[in-house]
Amino acid sequence: ITNLDLEIGELDKGDFEHFMLKEIYEQPKTIEETFRGRLKPEYSEIVLGGLLNVFPRIMEAERIVIVGCGTSWHAALIGEYMLEEYARVPVEVEYASEFRYRKPVLTEKDAVIFISQSGETADTMAALHLAKEKGALVLGICNVVGSSLSRETDAGVYTHAGVEIGVASTKAFTAQVTVLTMFALKLAKAKGNIGEEEYQELVKELSQIPEKGKQVLENNEAIKQVAEKYKDAVNALYLGRGYLFPVALEGALKLKEISYIHAEGYAAGEMKHGPIALVDDNLPVVVVAPHDAYYEKIVSNIQEVKARKGNVIAIVTEGDKGLKEMANDVIEIPKSHPALAPLLAVLPLQLLAYHIALLRGCNVDQPRNLAKSVTVE
Amino acid sequence: ITNLDLEIGELDKGDFEHFMLKEIYEQPKTIEETFRGRLKPEYSEIVLGGLLNVFPRIMEAERIVIVGCGTSWHAALIGEYMLEEYARVPVEVEYASEFRYRKPVLTEKDAVIFISQSGETADTMAALHLAKEKGALVLGICNVVGSSLSRETDAGVYTHAGVEIGVASTKAFTAQVTVLTMFALKLAKAKGNIGEEEYQELVKELSQIPEKGKQVLENNEAIKQVAEKYKDAVNALYLGRGYLFPVALEGALKLKEISYIHAEGYAAGEMKHGPIALVDDNLPVVVVAPHDAYYEKIVSNIQEVKARKGNVIAIVTEGDKGLKEMANDVIEIPKSHPALAPLLAVLPLQLLAYHIALLRGCNVDQPRNLAKSVTVE
Repeated sequence: ITNLDLEIGELDKGDFEHFMLKEIYEQPKTIEETFRGRLKPEYSEIVLGGLLNVFPRIMEAERIVIVGCGTSWHAALIGEYMLEEYARVPVEVEYASEFRYRKPVLTEKDAVIFISQSGETADTMAALHLAKEKGALVLGICNVVGSSLSRETDAGVYTHAGVEIGVASTKAFTAQVTVLTMFALKLAKAKGNIGEEEYQELVKELSQIPEKGKQVLENNEAIKQVAEKYKDAVNALYLGRGYLFPVALEGALKLKEISYIHAEGYAAGEMKHGPIALVDDNLPVVVVAPHDAYYEKIVSNIQEVKARKGNVIAIVTEGDKGLKEMANDVIEIPKSHPALAPLLAVLPLQLLAYHIALLRGCNVDQPRNLAKSVTVE
Repeated sequence: ITNLDLEIGELDKGDFEHFMLKEIYEQPKTIEETFRGRLKPEYSEIVLGGLLNVFPRIMEAERIVIVGCGTSWHAALIGEYMLEEYARVPVEVEYASEFRYRKPVLTEKDAVIFISQSGETADTMAALHLAKEKGALVLGICNVVGSSLSRETDAGVYTHAGVEIGVASTKAFTAQVTVLTMFALKLAKAKGNIGEEEYQELVKELSQIPEKGKQVLENNEAIKQVAEKYKDAVNALYLGRGYLFPVALEGALKLKEISYIHAEGYAAGEMKHGPIALVDDNLPVVVVAPHDAYYEKIVSNIQEVKARKGNVIAIVTEGDKGLKEMANDVIEIPKSHPALAPLLAVLPLQLLAYHIALLRGCNVDQPRNLAKSVTVE
């Protein structure tokens, strides 16, 4: 009975106008829930209980394949970057709907991670069955306890994001990225491929993300004002590099899903190979441009957009001055380790999509044509 | 002196209004040029002379990574599918601009293929230098003889597409796909991973592509009429599955590059995870839907688009009746092996982009903001 009460409580929007907004604001808490009890004191260890029995097999895997759809696929891309950089294992990311039908090369030397909020996504489940058949180690990252995915994988890690009602995924995404971060760091340490100092720094930073996330959410009013300016856009581009390339994809997907504006995400380096032809004075270009190793490259991307009269909305590191002058609008996020920046940079993009959709009179919690969980093929 | 005369001849538009149109029409010939002398009589062997010395190392490679930008990246995706299906080697495809800056896992056990029409793309060259440093075998596929790429790779294969003047790549793309097809089949046969019958069938089909390509180009007038209907579109979606997913990406890129319509390509299976929210009675949705193993799945995607009043332009196999009734417009291509369908299906998409751009008064050979060869970062 207590359980049921809690669940009904969770289905309440509380003081928020929409579930999506509530879920965006829950993220400092849900990210913490996801790493709570898993990051040990003094950052000495990362414990992912569900993987304990299979960890020796993960250590031996010659390749990791990550499979997902939509938002989960974006989380997978961030996981790929992190696993390759720190654990030094080759990683391949696949759309479940593509992976299942073609004849991917899979053996018992591969570990395949399936990501799905609901744990019921039809294409992802079909891909899982294929990978099992081939003898690969199959792992799951999902949010819904007891879902098909959690039952049919060899092992897995739950995201503890709580029930997600908004059709456009927000807190499930950041929870997936949190799990992948812990997984990558744990594997990196076990393989001896990350220095103790960097490991400590990353784990410590991860533990601080909830606090920094709260700071980002305090910019809500400013983000709303940016939304006012661009609410009538017909198209939008989202650009990012490195860890923030998948964030650009995810930001564009949010806007597309709930506002029906045709937003597209791109690796910023690809801009010159086509999308820059779209830039004119009507086009908002959202650039995720924190102060990291790519900063100069992305500033040069911004200059190119500006030279063609595009409107740049830049997500920048707190205190950045150069971009404040160059971009039409800036939204600040706290400084963080580049590998963890996705967990912060995605928050203003979620809010931006939310406010734009709301200003356009869209149903943000139940956008047209979309279902929360795609259980058909 | 003879050589120079020929080159000047090639720079002439001939009877065509634009270089792009001329280059689209040259493809039956350029595809043939690319396989001529390389497909041996009776399909007994595929000879790629440039790879002869390094072929033993290619055979030993545990993984193949393919790196490119823009259109070359789309060709790489088709190569990935073919290499995995037939040669049974795990393949990873990377954007050059992403690959070079992150820390990819690369060893001397990897073979890395770099694709660039010009052989001078800055990000691709930088990625090449990185891969060389890591001791990987580095291979090139490029069009310009004597380019930096051809000089700095361990070995490679030229596409014999001739000089490409149109900024939006057409014949270089089909030549790249032709090279990747020959490479995949040669490796598949050498590894004993393809049956003799299927190998023979594929090589024979490849040799017939130029003839079938000519048939596709004969639909030019019909394609022009379709262009008339959709020339005022603000957005467009392009969908495909399997080998035709990269073709959807490439078709969308063509439209984006030269008509400045915001077109986006998607794996059709991803449609339900976001892009379907965009569908309304204003949105043209180009679906590459030949009669292959995915046919029913893609018909169901088309039904979903139609149920939401989207306008479907379907690329179908000659004689297809079902889609003629369902779609708003159909463009036929001859029947072919699924793995070779990209070489045919991309042709109407190039023509569609060309005609739409022309009807909108755009400069198709020199679209705004774009350079033929991106030699800056």
